[in-house]
Amino acid sequence: MIENKKILLIYNASQVLTLRGGLQRGWKLGKLGIIPNGAVAVEGETILAVGDSQSLLANYPDAEKLDAVQQVVMPGFVDPHTHLIWAGDRAAEFTMRLQGKTYMEILAAGGGILSTVNATRAASVEELLHQTRQRALTSFYHGTTTAEVKTGYGLTFDSEMDQLKAILALDIEGPLQLVPTFLAAHAVPPEFKHNPQAYVDLICNEMLPELAQWWKNNQPQNSLPFVDVFCEDGAFDLAQSRQILEKARKLGFPLKIHADEFKNLGGAALAAELGAASADHLVKTSSADIRALGQSDTVAVSLPGTPFGLDEDEFTPAKDILDAGGILALATDINPGTSWCESMQFILALACRKIGLTPAQAIAAATINAAAALNLANQVGSLEPGKQADLLILNVDDYQHLGYRFGINLVSKVIKRGRVYPV
Amino acid sequence: MIENKKILLIYNASQVLTLRGGLQRGWKLGKLGIIPNGAVAVEGETILAVGDSQSLLANYPDAEKLDAVQQVVMPGFVDPHTHLIWAGDRAAEFTMRLQGKTYMEILAAGGGILSTVNATRAASVEELLHQTRQRALTSFYHGTTTAEVKTGYGLTFDSEMDQLKAILALDIEGPLQLVPTFLAAHAVPPEFKHNPQAYVDLICNEMLPELAQWWKNNQPQNSLPFVDVFCEDGAFDLAQSRQILEKARKLGFPLKIHADEFKNLGGAALAAELGAASADHLVKTSSADIRALGQSDTVAVSLPGTPFGLDEDEFTPAKDILDAGGILALATDINPGTSWCESMQFILALACRKIGLTPAQAIAAATINAAAALNLANQVGSLEPGKQADLLILNVDDYQHLGYRFGINLVSKVIKRGRVYPV
Repeated sequence: MIENKKILLIYNASQVLTLRGGLQRGWKLGKLGIIPNGAVAVEGETILAVGDSQSLLANYPDAEKLDAVQQVVMPGFVDPHTHLIWAGDRAAEFTMRLQGKTYMEILAAGGGILSTVNATRAASVEELLHQTRQRALTSFYHGTTTAEVKTGYGLTFDSEMDQLKAILALDIEGPLQLVPTFLAAHAVPPEFKHNPQAYVDLICNEMLPELAQWWKNNQPQNSLPFVDVFCEDGAFDLAQSRQILEKARKLGFPLKIHADEFKNLGGAALAAELGAASADHLVKTSSADIRALGQSDTVAVSLPGTPFGLDEDEFTPAKDILDAGGILALATDINPGTSWCESMQFILALACRKIGLTPAQAIAAATINAAAALNLANQVGSLEPGKQADLLILNVDDYQHLGYRFGINLVSKVIKRGRVYPV
Repeated sequence: MIENKKILLIYNASQVLTLRGGLQRGWKLGKLGIIPNGAVAVEGETILAVGDSQSLLANYPDAEKLDAVQQVVMPGFVDPHTHLIWAGDRAAEFTMRLQGKTYMEILAAGGGILSTVNATRAASVEELLHQTRQRALTSFYHGTTTAEVKTGYGLTFDSEMDQLKAILALDIEGPLQLVPTFLAAHAVPPEFKHNPQAYVDLICNEMLPELAQWWKNNQPQNSLPFVDVFCEDGAFDLAQSRQILEKARKLGFPLKIHADEFKNLGGAALAAELGAASADHLVKTSSADIRALGQSDTVAVSLPGTPFGLDEDEFTPAKDILDAGGILALATDINPGTSWCESMQFILALACRKIGLTPAQAIAAATINAAAALNLANQVGSLEPGKQADLLILNVDDYQHLGYRFGINLVSKVIKRGRVYPV
C-alpha cells in the first residue's frame, strides 16, 4: 500500500474498545466492541482502520508504530456537562459547610454561586483564560478529549459573551476540544433579585436574538451553541424554562436543561417535549418524566460528582432510566461550588458505586452516549473509520480497572486529532 | 553564616503548614501552624529552619532557592495502613459484585482475598517487586512520603518473609519510605480451613519467634516491624487476636490491629489494653471501645476508602472518637479487593465528606497523627528543625483546596529526605 499522509499505527493493545455501532439506548448500554490484541490506524486527524494487530501490521507496514502492549486503547472521554470557565474558588465556603454553617450564613459571608459571578465578572480576560486553561489541561490529561463548557457566571449579555468568546478561544488553542453552551439562565443576577421575570424576558427578547446575530456574523462556519436553563427552585421555574427554551428553539439553537437536581419541577419532560439534546442532573426525576425521557432522543446526563461533592445520598436513578429505554450519559459537572473534579475516570468510579453501572456501561455512557448529548456521535465517542482520531492509551491491560480503581489517573497517552500527548 | 552542606531554601510559599507541636489529640486536631509567606530551609536530608520568607532569605543568602510562590508547602503525607504488596488484580470480581453476584459466587469463581494469596504466592519476586513498585511510585507522586506496608498475601512463613524482604528492598530502593508490618494473621489460609486455631498456634509458636530471630540477624540496626491481626468474623476472633498480639508483645514487636470493619468484636479495646500503636478501620466500634481508645495512646486509624470502595454507608464515627479524646489518623488501606487507591489526597476528600473532618483536621490526621500511628512522630509528619525533610509543594495557594477538590493530583513537587522530585 502507498500512503501520502503519514499513518500512525497503535498496535499490540490487550484490548481495543471500539464502542462501534452508534449510541446505546436502554440496557443495550455497555457494548464495548472489544478487539483483543487490537490495533488502530490513524491518518492525519482521522481514524483509518480498526482491527486486530496482525491484519493492521500487514496492511500498513510503513506506518509509524506505537506499541500498546498490555495496555487498553479506547475512545477519548466526552464530558458533556461542565462549567469549566470561572474565576476564583470557593474553598473557604467548603470548610464553612463542613463546620455546619447554613446556606444563608455562607451567602452572608460572600459565598454561593454569586460569589463566583462576582469573581468572574471582575477577572480580566487573561486571568479567566489562565485559570480555565489549567482546568482544561487537567481534564485533557485525565482522558477527556471533548468537553462541553457553559457560560453562566456573568449573567449580563456582555459578560456572558466574554465567557463564550473565551471558550471559543480555548477551543482553538486546544488540545481539549470545547463545545460552547450559553447559560445566561444559570441564576437570577443580583440586579434582578426583585424581578426575576424581567431577566427571563431580557434573555428571550434581547440576549438570545443578539447571540444568534453575533454567531451568524462571527462563527458562520460552526453550528450554533447550545442554550441551557437551570430549571430549579431558586433559579428558574418550569414556565420560565419553557419560555427560554422555546425562544431558543425558534432561533435554531440546540437545547439542554438542568433538571431535577434538588426538586422535581418537570424539566426532564420539558426537554423530551422540546427535543433537547440532553436533560442533565436527574436526581429527583419522577417516574412519568423518566418514561418521557425514555421515549425521546434526549440524552439523560447523570452527574454523580455533584451529590458526591455535596455529600448527598441520592443519585440519578440510572436503572430506571435504562428500564425506560433512555440514553444514559455521564459528565463531571465541574464547577467551583459543588463538584470541582476534572476527571471523568473518577466519575466512572462513582457511577459504578452510586448509580449501579458496570465499568463497561460507565465507559459507554462516558464516550458514545456522551457524544450524543453534544450531537457529536457521528464525529467522536467511538473508534470507527472516518471518525476523529481521539483515543486514550491506558496503563492497564483490562478495561475493568476503570471504575474499580479510584483517585488516580490511569491514562498513559492521550491522542487528540491524531496527535500524541504523553501524560 | 557559613554552611558546609548544601542548603535548599523553599521560599515565597503562600502558606507553610508546619503541623508543629506534636500529635493532635481529640478536638485539638486541625492545628496547622500556618506561616503565611513562609519558607523552609533544608540541609541534606534534614529540616534546618522553618519561618517567614524574609527572615530565612536573610539567614541563608547562599542557599539554593526554590520559589513556591502561590503554592502551599506542607509535610509529606504518611499513609499508616496499606497492603501495597500483592500480585494480580480483582477487577473482574468488581464487575461481578456490581452485577449482583454474591460473595459465595465470587469465591466460587476464584475471587476474594484467597485469589490474591494465590496470585501473590505464584508471582516471582521480580514480578511482585515490579507491580508493587508501580503502586509505590503512584503513591509517592500523589504526596505520600512514608507508607506502612503489610505482608499478608502469603500466609506461610516463607511467603510472608518473601513479602517482608520485598518491602525492605523497596524501602531501600526509594523514594517512598516503607515501614513493614507482619500480617500472617490476615486470613486463615486454605490449608488450615478446618483448623484455624492450628494456624494461630503456628503464628505464635513458630512464625513470630522465627521472625524475631531473623530480624536480629539481618536487621539489627532497625526497630522491629509491626505485628498486625485482622480481628473480624471470618478471620480471627478476639481470643485468637489476643493470643497473637500478646505473644508478639512479649517478643518486643510493636502492635497494630484491624478492628471493627464489619462487626464489633472488641479489637479496639484490646489494642488500647495492649498498648498497640494503632487500631484501624473502626467502623462498628462500640461507645465503650471508643472510650477505651480515647484514654489510650493507641492511634485510631480511619480508612474511608474501604467503605467507599465497597459502597457501604457506614464510616468511622470520627466525631465520637474526637469527643473521647482519641488520636485520629487517616490511611488509604490500598488493597486489591476493597480500596485500590494510592492517593491520600482522595482519602482527605472522603474524610471531609464521610467522617466530617474539615480540610485542616484531615491534613493533621494524614501527617503528624499518621506518623504517630507508625511511632514516627519524632521523625516525620511535621515541618520542624531536626526532622526529616519530607515536604510537598502543592499547586494551590490555600490548603483548603485539599478535600474541596477531588479525583486529581494537586501535588507539584515531592521532596523526600531533601531531594526534589517534580511530579
